[in-house]
Amino acid sequence: MNTKISDHNLTQASSHVTQTVDTSLQSSTLKDTNTYLTEATFNLSDYLAQRREQVEAALESSITSGYPEKLYESMRYSLMAGGKRLRPILCLASCELSGGVLEMAMPTACALEMLHTMSLMHDDLPALDNDDYRRGKLTNHKVYGENIAILAGDALLPYAFEYIVVQTKGVPADRLLKVIAKLSHAVGAKGLAGGQVADLESEKLQNLDLATLNFIHSHKTGALLEACVVSGALLVGANNEVLHRLSRYARNIGLAFQIIDDILDITANKEQLGKTPGKDEKAQKATYPSLLGINESRYQAQKLIEEAKKELAPFQEKAIPLRSLADYIITRTH
Amino acid sequence: MNTKISDHNLTQASSHVTQTVDTSLQSSTLKDTNTYLTEATFNLSDYLAQRREQVEAALESSITSGYPEKLYESMRYSLMAGGKRLRPILCLASCELSGGVLEMAMPTACALEMLHTMSLMHDDLPALDNDDYRRGKLTNHKVYGENIAILAGDALLPYAFEYIVVQTKGVPADRLLKVIAKLSHAVGAKGLAGGQVADLESEKLQNLDLATLNFIHSHKTGALLEACVVSGALLVGANNEVLHRLSRYARNIGLAFQIIDDILDITANKEQLGKTPGKDEKAQKATYPSLLGINESRYQAQKLIEEAKKELAPFQEKAIPLRSLADYIITRTH
Repeated sequence: MNTKISDHNLTQASSHVTQTVDTSLQSSTLKDTNTYLTEATFNLSDYLAQRREQVEAALESSITSGYPEKLYESMRYSLMAGGKRLRPILCLASCELSGGVLEMAMPTACALEMLHTMSLMHDDLPALDNDDYRRGKLTNHKVYGENIAILAGDALLPYAFEYIVVQTKGVPADRLLKVIAKLSHAVGAKGLAGGQVADLESEKLQNLDLATLNFIHSHKTGALLEACVVSGALLVGANNEVLHRLSRYARNIGLAFQIIDDILDITANKEQLGKTPGKDEKAQKATYPSLLGINESRYQAQKLIEEAKKELAPFQEKAIPLRSLADYIITRTH
Repeated sequence: MNTKISDHNLTQASSHVTQTVDTSLQSSTLKDTNTYLTEATFNLSDYLAQRREQVEAALESSITSGYPEKLYESMRYSLMAGGKRLRPILCLASCELSGGVLEMAMPTACALEMLHTMSLMHDDLPALDNDDYRRGKLTNHKVYGENIAILAGDALLPYAFEYIVVQTKGVPADRLLKVIAKLSHAVGAKGLAGGQVADLESEKLQNLDLATLNFIHSHKTGALLEACVVSGALLVGANNEVLHRLSRYARNIGLAFQIIDDILDITANKEQLGKTPGKDEKAQKATYPSLLGINESRYQAQKLIEEAKKELAPFQEKAIPLRSLADYIITRTH
């Protein structure tokens, strides 16, 4: 791994941190650095609330009404159905960490939520997961019908790319192309859609191994989460060292996120989840808890979060939001 | 309308043609020019066969196999199911007309076919048109199941944009962004998906008027056809005068294409169409023939084709393929 640090964000790092990066990711001094940085005054709950409000406002104005009304209503219904807005927030945080300002990343952040939303709309369809509830509300096809839910998803997907091109200001064209390539890859056959199909195929198998489960989740959930974090840095023109660190951070929190999701499906109730719990067990679906047990799953998730945070060490204070978000993933209850 | 001509393709036009454009589109001298140009030696059938072969080869290599196999098979099944490849060919022709070379436009041409294909895959689903046959073969969901057909469409859509970014060589980034904006707009709520929903909604209406029928088709079919023609010129950096002429050309042939489609649904048989004919009448669907009669529909289509060809007058010999394609649309039997 190339540990040379040349990015302008990293040159501000103290000699202590620079040395840490120059030696090894496994170095125990990294832990100290992390411990020191986590002590900075930062309220994640306030941070998330503020960012969420900014994202909601941006999403609200991203799609107005139009003809045919039902199509726009259906798109807005799912896009504005709440949720943690974790994906856009990760993109914004990564942009700021890389030295950019929020405005540069907001259209991409909205686009990421559009892509995520359309994947949920289609995933909920009778031909797929056949879910009636999502985020505590009726799923799109239960309200608008299957045909509209399919087409509204088909409309949200390209709109994400159009929105990035038309709405992003102050970012060179070549960077936007990289962002578009990253996002389109993340939701396609080599990302989200591939993970969904692998998930469907795995339902027929009797004994699902951990490697396949990892494949499913690194594609179904991980690829888009990684795109969120990396795209925020791509917009700012971050160098490869930064991009690789953020990519590894994201892949680790992505897998941890899924493990926690599997655990919550067993331990949480409908009000906490906003959807029907216990679905995995009912479907006799292989999950991390079913393969590893709940305790070992929790331990693995914790280990992934620690690995993720190690990648952020050189960024010092600038990484506080992403570091806190990693901790949030493991402690969340819904 | 600004009729000033400054594009390098147009400066080669004879003074006769330049004068024609400087006066009026309705000028009778344009007709003479068209008549003269159509007499050039050009074999549309050979041209289409050659272009189709080039497009097939490019599409063939655009998606190779991968894991999960079923997803890639499903994507390839519909993408390689034949068809006229009219959309990619329009894009290539427009690129050449604007002074570009085929290689510049081939990735965009493939992307257009991917977008068209995914719209057909979803349109054929039981929740939408519920079609068993397409291009003489079983529809995607009849072979791979509804869940895979939905996800394969969802994978083809973003891949189109990824493919443009990754595969296009020798085109500045800002032009590629314009192409991406054009294509994403064309298949979204303000284009194809919007037209599909308007079409669904119209099925409930007793009396559909011509304005609504025009809205449906200008969105469902027209928007993507226009994007094919305009994107070919965008890649070359054509000026606004050229873009507007090509846009009007495309919108006119797009509507004519749909009128002929409606007529063929009545007059052609299954072998000619590659799909079940008579579906519109069976579904008591408003069509151009049902609103205007077959003869008046044919006349309207012919008029649109003439209008379309007028837009091409200043491009002289360079427009022969697009001009012949316009004529082909009105004379086709499938």
